[in-house]
Amino acid sequence: MTEEKLIAAIRGIVEELSRQGPGPRPIVLGIGDDAAAWQPSRSHLSVITTDALIDGVHFFGDRMTARTIGHRAMAANVSDIAAMGARPVLATIALGVAPGAEEAWLLELYQGMQGIAASHGVRIVGGDITRAPATMLSITVVGEVRRTHLRRRDAGRAKDVVAVTGKLGASRAGLELLRNSEINVAEDMRERALRAFETPEPRVREGRWLAASVNVHAMMDCSDGLSTDLGRLARASGCGALIESVPIDDAAQAVASAAGVDACDYALHGGEDFELIVTIKPRAFAHLAKRFEQRFGRALIPIGILEKDGGLRIREGAGARPIIAAGWDHLADTKK
Amino acid sequence: MTEEKLIAAIRGIVEELSRQGPGPRPIVLGIGDDAAAWQPSRSHLSVITTDALIDGVHFFGDRMTARTIGHRAMAANVSDIAAMGARPVLATIALGVAPGAEEAWLLELYQGMQGIAASHGVRIVGGDITRAPATMLSITVVGEVRRTHLRRRDAGRAKDVVAVTGKLGASRAGLELLRNSEINVAEDMRERALRAFETPEPRVREGRWLAASVNVHAMMDCSDGLSTDLGRLARASGCGALIESVPIDDAAQAVASAAGVDACDYALHGGEDFELIVTIKPRAFAHLAKRFEQRFGRALIPIGILEKDGGLRIREGAGARPIIAAGWDHLADTKK
Repeated sequence: MTEEKLIAAIRGIVEELSRQGPGPRPIVLGIGDDAAAWQPSRSHLSVITTDALIDGVHFFGDRMTARTIGHRAMAANVSDIAAMGARPVLATIALGVAPGAEEAWLLELYQGMQGIAASHGVRIVGGDITRAPATMLSITVVGEVRRTHLRRRDAGRAKDVVAVTGKLGASRAGLELLRNSEINVAEDMRERALRAFETPEPRVREGRWLAASVNVHAMMDCSDGLSTDLGRLARASGCGALIESVPIDDAAQAVASAAGVDACDYALHGGEDFELIVTIKPRAFAHLAKRFEQRFGRALIPIGILEKDGGLRIREGAGARPIIAAGWDHLADTKK
Repeated sequence: MTEEKLIAAIRGIVEELSRQGPGPRPIVLGIGDDAAAWQPSRSHLSVITTDALIDGVHFFGDRMTARTIGHRAMAANVSDIAAMGARPVLATIALGVAPGAEEAWLLELYQGMQGIAASHGVRIVGGDITRAPATMLSITVVGEVRRTHLRRRDAGRAKDVVAVTGKLGASRAGLELLRNSEINVAEDMRERALRAFETPEPRVREGRWLAASVNVHAMMDCSDGLSTDLGRLARASGCGALIESVPIDDAAQAVASAAGVDACDYALHGGEDFELIVTIKPRAFAHLAKRFEQRFGRALIPIGILEKDGGLRIREGAGARPIIAAGWDHLADTKK
């Protein structure tokens, strides 16, 4: 396998599948030159995000298909774009190839990335392939957003309603099923949890729709766990946050019960659900949530409020107790 | 060291040094959100490139300073932007941190990247930091270029003059000095070779200037070695290429002599000189080269011509012999 042959095969995947996507993008020059070129929208801001994923840290090459690894990596980046209220446009991919990797495996990895990319109108326009001691993927996605629709994580205000675009914990439940084959759970719940972990769907349409409302103040995605990410949002906004209730996905509940652990931990600290966390002007919440449900057929779920201060807390009886963020610190030794 | 503390320290470096750079960039939102945001120029195309560098493959963490590693990684990406005729604007950085890496080392790495970035007006706007089995860096740089100035590698035409923006081989000579401490060479030549390897300067001004001429047809940078890169340019352009002479840097000559090898090999196959390779309309070459020298105080060096076909060849006496590209294949096991 030489670099040029592999790139030619990848180009085939990317260009083949792009033809099935939702129409042409303003790409002037794609894979094969020193850089790719495109015409950015004249009326929009551009946004950019980068995420690296390493075998043994973010995924397990021995227990996941290449297609799953590719899908998850691209989904994580597209989700970051969604969290800005933006539309993803293009991606570049840096791939480190571990010793012994086979061409078929690498092409399946690109198929995984290309599938989810194309379904969101994202063109893979370039990248870099190199040897590495372990498989590693670094994806950069560029998107576009109207200046007034850009949503930051530091724009939350005290008394805002905090809401999420879906129930939480299913992705972590799927990870537990992969880690422990002895967890015994109904087949539909098993499938639901594995699907949440293996092929998560970033909330691009929901993010763009929410960002179009002036009543949506702050937005970010829930990739490192609600406790970690809501903590970050509140801190960036100079606020505290009180979680009144944690919406737990049915599959998370089923897997946690079977594993004998508290499903609330999956939902609070699990991460990688890729739901969006938004903070909303209190008076506007009910109407916005109603329109959201009409539009997307799912609830915009209120989970608490931003407070003037007090760190991150969770309702307990008549009071509230502090939460220690127990999500993902990318430099910590283990996922706690 | 936690992720958030490290990011705060990196932010300090990036924002401190950016204030010393050549004026503000249209960055709306930098490090710290799900994505960074900027206002692209309304009259330009955007360009994007990604390069990954892995310890033990592209650099040697045990024999190079963190600052050097950072400089080289950023320079390689900025050079790809220069090769399009574009101006680099912003960068994102994905960093994989090896076990045992110290915070001071990581901050020095960022200082290396930030120094060369700021000197070209590039703002580091975001990225990702994670654990990894070996230090790995993946940098993405976005730039801007007028549509008519975009220069591709596939636009060369038969009979074009092929030229490079500087002599070649010094970077490879520097690598040889690092690999073999017994090579005995004059101090000024040693310094010159090491500087070429450790702190290469991408040809951004030269690239933008050349791209402004309609007589410059194809352009790319010489990062993987002249034999590899000119071969790629010629093939992409549907041409062959005949190299008439190889301009060898003085330091490459001195080190090769001391090491008992042919300096021409350093210049032809060494790579990482980051000079630009351009192909120019034959009639226009003399005048363009004269203006180039006036502008930059260095020669635009003619090295051969594009031909209708014939692959990549080098002049030998009255004839020419084929060259086997012996530069860098990123998936090959060794640098030949």
